[in-house]
Amino acid sequence: MKKMKVAVMDGIGQTSFVEREVPRPNEHEVLVELDYVGVCGSDLHYYESGAIGDYIVQPPFVLGHEAGGKVVEIGKGVTHLKVGDLVALEPGKTCGKCEFCRTGRYNLCPDVAFFATPPIDGVFQEYVTHDASLCFKLPDTVDTMSGALIEPLAVGFHAAFQGEAKIGQKAVITGAGAIGLVTLLALKALGLNEIYVVDVMDNRLEKAKELGATAVINGKKEDTVAKLREYTQGKELDLAIDTTGSAFVVGQAIEAVKKGANIVLVGYSPTGRMDLPISLFMDKELSLKSVFRYRHIYPLAIEAVASGRINVKDIVTNVFEFADIQNALDSCVNNKQEIVKAVIQIKDPTLN
Amino acid sequence: MKKMKVAVMDGIGQTSFVEREVPRPNEHEVLVELDYVGVCGSDLHYYESGAIGDYIVQPPFVLGHEAGGKVVEIGKGVTHLKVGDLVALEPGKTCGKCEFCRTGRYNLCPDVAFFATPPIDGVFQEYVTHDASLCFKLPDTVDTMSGALIEPLAVGFHAAFQGEAKIGQKAVITGAGAIGLVTLLALKALGLNEIYVVDVMDNRLEKAKELGATAVINGKKEDTVAKLREYTQGKELDLAIDTTGSAFVVGQAIEAVKKGANIVLVGYSPTGRMDLPISLFMDKELSLKSVFRYRHIYPLAIEAVASGRINVKDIVTNVFEFADIQNALDSCVNNKQEIVKAVIQIKDPTLN
Amino acid sequence: MKKMKVAVMDGIGQTSFVEREVPRPNEHEVLVELDYVGVCGSDLHYYESGAIGDYIVQPPFVLGHEAGGKVVEIGKGVTHLKVGDLVALEPGKTCGKCEFCRTGRYNLCPDVAFFATPPIDGVFQEYVTHDASLCFKLPDTVDTMSGALIEPLAVGFHAAFQGEAKIGQKAVITGAGAIGLVTLLALKALGLNEIYVVDVMDNRLEKAKELGATAVINGKKEDTVAKLREYTQGKELDLAIDTTGSAFVVGQAIEAVKKGANIVLVGYSPTGRMDLPISLFMDKELSLKSVFRYRHIYPLAIEAVASGRINVKDIVTNVFEFADIQNALDSCVNNKQEIVKAVIQIKDPTLN
Amino acid sequence: MKKMKVAVMDGIGQTSFVEREVPRPNEHEVLVELDYVGVCGSDLHYYESGAIGDYIVQPPFVLGHEAGGKVVEIGKGVTHLKVGDLVALEPGKTCGKCEFCRTGRYNLCPDVAFFATPPIDGVFQEYVTHDASLCFKLPDTVDTMSGALIEPLAVGFHAAFQGEAKIGQKAVITGAGAIGLVTLLALKALGLNEIYVVDVMDNRLEKAKELGATAVINGKKEDTVAKLREYTQGKELDLAIDTTGSAFVVGQAIEAVKKGANIVLVGYSPTGRMDLPISLFMDKELSLKSVFRYRHIYPLAIEAVASGRINVKDIVTNVFEFADIQNALDSCVNNKQEIVKAVIQIKDPTLN
Repeated sequence: MKKMKVAVMDGIGQTSFVEREVPRPNEHEVLVELDYVGVCGSDLHYYESGAIGDYIVQPPFVLGHEAGGKVVEIGKGVTHLKVGDLVALEPGKTCGKCEFCRTGRYNLCPDVAFFATPPIDGVFQEYVTHDASLCFKLPDTVDTMSGALIEPLAVGFHAAFQGEAKIGQKAVITGAGAIGLVTLLALKALGLNEIYVVDVMDNRLEKAKELGATAVINGKKEDTVAKLREYTQGKELDLAIDTTGSAFVVGQAIEAVKKGANIVLVGYSPTGRMDLPISLFMDKELSLKSVFRYRHIYPLAIEAVASGRINVKDIVTNVFEFADIQNALDSCVNNKQEIVKAVIQIKDPTLN
Repeated sequence: MKKMKVAVMDGIGQTSFVEREVPRPNEHEVLVELDYVGVCGSDLHYYESGAIGDYIVQPPFVLGHEAGGKVVEIGKGVTHLKVGDLVALEPGKTCGKCEFCRTGRYNLCPDVAFFATPPIDGVFQEYVTHDASLCFKLPDTVDTMSGALIEPLAVGFHAAFQGEAKIGQKAVITGAGAIGLVTLLALKALGLNEIYVVDVMDNRLEKAKELGATAVINGKKEDTVAKLREYTQGKELDLAIDTTGSAFVVGQAIEAVKKGANIVLVGYSPTGRMDLPISLFMDKELSLKSVFRYRHIYPLAIEAVASGRINVKDIVTNVFEFADIQNALDSCVNNKQEIVKAVIQIKDPTLN
Repeated sequence: MKKMKVAVMDGIGQTSFVEREVPRPNEHEVLVELDYVGVCGSDLHYYESGAIGDYIVQPPFVLGHEAGGKVVEIGKGVTHLKVGDLVALEPGKTCGKCEFCRTGRYNLCPDVAFFATPPIDGVFQEYVTHDASLCFKLPDTVDTMSGALIEPLAVGFHAAFQGEAKIGQKAVITGAGAIGLVTLLALKALGLNEIYVVDVMDNRLEKAKELGATAVINGKKEDTVAKLREYTQGKELDLAIDTTGSAFVVGQAIEAVKKGANIVLVGYSPTGRMDLPISLFMDKELSLKSVFRYRHIYPLAIEAVASGRINVKDIVTNVFEFADIQNALDSCVNNKQEIVKAVIQIKDPTLN
Repeated sequence: MKKMKVAVMDGIGQTSFVEREVPRPNEHEVLVELDYVGVCGSDLHYYESGAIGDYIVQPPFVLGHEAGGKVVEIGKGVTHLKVGDLVALEPGKTCGKCEFCRTGRYNLCPDVAFFATPPIDGVFQEYVTHDASLCFKLPDTVDTMSGALIEPLAVGFHAAFQGEAKIGQKAVITGAGAIGLVTLLALKALGLNEIYVVDVMDNRLEKAKELGATAVINGKKEDTVAKLREYTQGKELDLAIDTTGSAFVVGQAIEAVKKGANIVLVGYSPTGRMDLPISLFMDKELSLKSVFRYRHIYPLAIEAVASGRINVKDIVTNVFEFADIQNALDSCVNNKQEIVKAVIQIKDPTLN
């Protein structure tokens, strides 16, 4: 039996490598040799605290759910992939039968098995078997690091769609972390040209500017609402997407948007609650939308990258080797502000 | 010059009758002899406190904006109405040129002139001129008291539309005041059959039951969320419409609805703010919609009444004579719980 | 092994009874003892001509796909049904994995197995096993004849939804056969009050009037477009749903509707083609929608019947015993105009 | 009184210059000195035949409705424009009060006054007064030739919106005339990357390729449907937009698209009718949408040009001087295939 290296979380803030057997694909699965796996805020949250809400890590547990790799074996029933294909892996396998699956909202399926959401193991490991229908072939122009990053990009697109983003609109994105940045990339790919980004860290704002923000605002140093009015010459915003989870910031968004606008929540509040200026919200007849993962995005996100509209690797600030994963996770936890997006290079590039 | 009796608000909690000239309609207006004018919560709020948000009453001011009456004179350019027609009056005249008017969302027009929203006078008076396009002819089967009540009914329909109410859905309405009740009538007219109503006053809940609620819940005596689960046999609700303005109650709605559901806010919070369980909201990918007045509803609401699908007068608990208006307003303020919906009979019925 | 009686189509216009083994349900199936099965136009088309388009009957073949019955055995994995439950059977089993299934449009699944669409046998037989998730429990107030008729009613609802039917609209239904009538019932349940029905047979028009049409028009004797203008007092229609498949009639609908309206095609043209006044269609910026079976309708249609909003049995003009099925099919073929809707009573009522 | 030169159509195929007084703007108007006016197919149709449907030219009549120019005088009530601003002119003034205007579909207003639609004169003249709200200021990066071309570009965007074009879709545009080309530009700006263009003229197909078509098909030399299957590797198209008006071509589109797809008609059929394969249309549950002018597009189209996403002048093949207008129109009529898009330079550039 072939063996593989797996990075397991043994306890809070602690990982080690173990050897496990390389799994074999069943009829409708493929075996993927992983190349890159991104580090997501949720991975770090489990790593730091052992739980997110009701989801509690039982060690040993494998983190990581943003994956790109190469197909190395295919199940008998698989026809659309072949050995050697590079793929991006959509991490959630859903039931296909519940009300949500039947109506096309599979991201709400209560029986989903999602990489690195306890008790389902993630993919900080060398190989994984996965449903072939969730492995999306990458065109020649898209590499596996981009493939891994399709996952966060999908969140950005879903946020844009939940907000009914439309060409010609003026939008603000609050928070310029990885999710804020992919949202910016998604909005631009959808044809929006006037996009403001707000954060409190200048390095992040510079990144946003590089990636095409019309203007950026440091919410600590400037009056966000006043600045947005100035930049839009008194016109208000059509859309706000929040990735901060701060009620204060969402309150500013409520102030800054136009009547009838959508506000989309992507960032979770640390307290689980938000105290909002709801009368203003109602006077403007606003809508507050939310984002739980994504649906139907992988193909279009891959195409947006393949066509050159989006260069998703632009969000990456740090690449770590697999052997260095403990340091990678620790660095991310300790330098949350500076490391905007880290990726783990699972496969040793010298081995290929 | 013909004179008319006008009930003016002279100060907080204080009205008196004055005589004014009966106005003459301009080219595109009609003169309406008012028959019934409903008493709305906003009228009472102005009456009690002199202001709603930034709208401040400068006495003498005329309250009342839910009006039904008879056309007694028409402007030269009016073709779709004639003297003698009974009409319901949509109270807001909009600019027709702004972004909101142009895109069909005229209820958000910043330049609207709306009866009884300062500084525009309302219609607790015997006659009013109004844009003919805002006067909707009542069919033979609809009387002017129903005509006056089209206004609150329009709020109920708009709430239903904002919530994307759809046949086959299970809905909960929180708050069984006048707006809760018209929302119930609207949902039923749209084909919904399973509608739960929550309030803390048994008399209101009885009214809701009479009007066709599937079951009612006294939120003070019963555990609303548990009771809803029991009634729906574990299935969750597709839609919640809140008319209470209570963050606690909206929090219960967030708990009670199904993933992907809409929650519609109609009732204003007394503090202007709401502290909501936003992580749960996001985990379920809910949407929070709001209602500012209504748009495009009068014709369909009148038809729903004409066809007998809705008997909107069922919500009326008290009818006061015009001469008795001070007592009417005082009674409404002092018995908010018992007087679900009061209507002022402007025209002395013995005079016809 | 228990045996059952099956009516097989041996050739064009020819059936006979054979005995087959009663099947056993697999893990996720139930065994249903059939009570009523409706006769659909497609059954008659196969019966008369042996084919519909590329679907060719290979005898022996079993017709019938509108079924209601009683659960008599359940698979091990079935939890939401029990022996004795009365059910309506949605006839199409879909793959759950294709693009259409994933996006909630399962009626377009290319791999569907649908009762009585060759080569899949239908249900003119005493028992059938069926996926439990496609068997919808009937509430106490709904009998199995209504259960069988949920299938055509679902077509009516889907036509209404494709046409974006909305309360307050004026609609015309062309063709008052079974599908025209269920469309009428669906539109009424959705809150529409002004619905005109056009046909060339007075008996069908009377039926439509009975079922609640606002007015009916005999298109052979009257000028349909002129008559619609008269009835609507010059106002135009918001929606037209055609069940005739006649290009001439659809052309009249194009003339009769308002700018921006939807026209929905349900009836197939005998030639497969339609020659339409497309410049008029474009000048009015109309949309032409179509209906292929239905999706997500069974629960809401059953509820509409259970609540009394719809009495779907009102469309039935003829009930035949199972033993009499050859005569039933022949009668339907020979009296297409008079027999609006026939149902086969599979189970001998004296045996229960 | 200042005079201006006006090119009037005196009869079929015949123009001459007359002098008229330069009009003065009323309160809500501006006076625009015209710079460029595009030649549209409808102008040529009036020029050649004297009528389009019921719209009949009564000479002397002024053609031209695609206009860009400079504001030279403003009415007293105008605040958002000043003398010297460059503007694009939306050519249709609507009533603001009808059902269509009220619901945001102002392009369907029956009382519209539209440049060069009889009896309203167009703008092949040196100056015009126009409602200020229909004059859209051009940013510094957009010149007046682009301003004139916003009008056809708006048709392309409206076609895309009617077809619900969405990033990630595969689309085909049939017809590579000016409208086909602007539709291509619009689809690309909306994020679509896989767009096939079909025509029968190689010069037009080359133009389409230049403007970014994924691949082009000469429908005379190649089998359009087979070629589309080949290019998409067996996948079908999500969207087809027809600008040819040919029933044969629309029939090919019906064959080439995926189940559930939209087909959008922009091109008018010379006979006013289309004979379509409607059974196939229904089996695939397709929708046929249409395009009548556009609504709410100018701001976003101008922004798309300003941002560099669209270079709308790329569609222009011929620029004529105003003095040369008779030759311009004759050339366009006689070389319909070669002159894809002509523009008249109204203002002598040597005079500025």
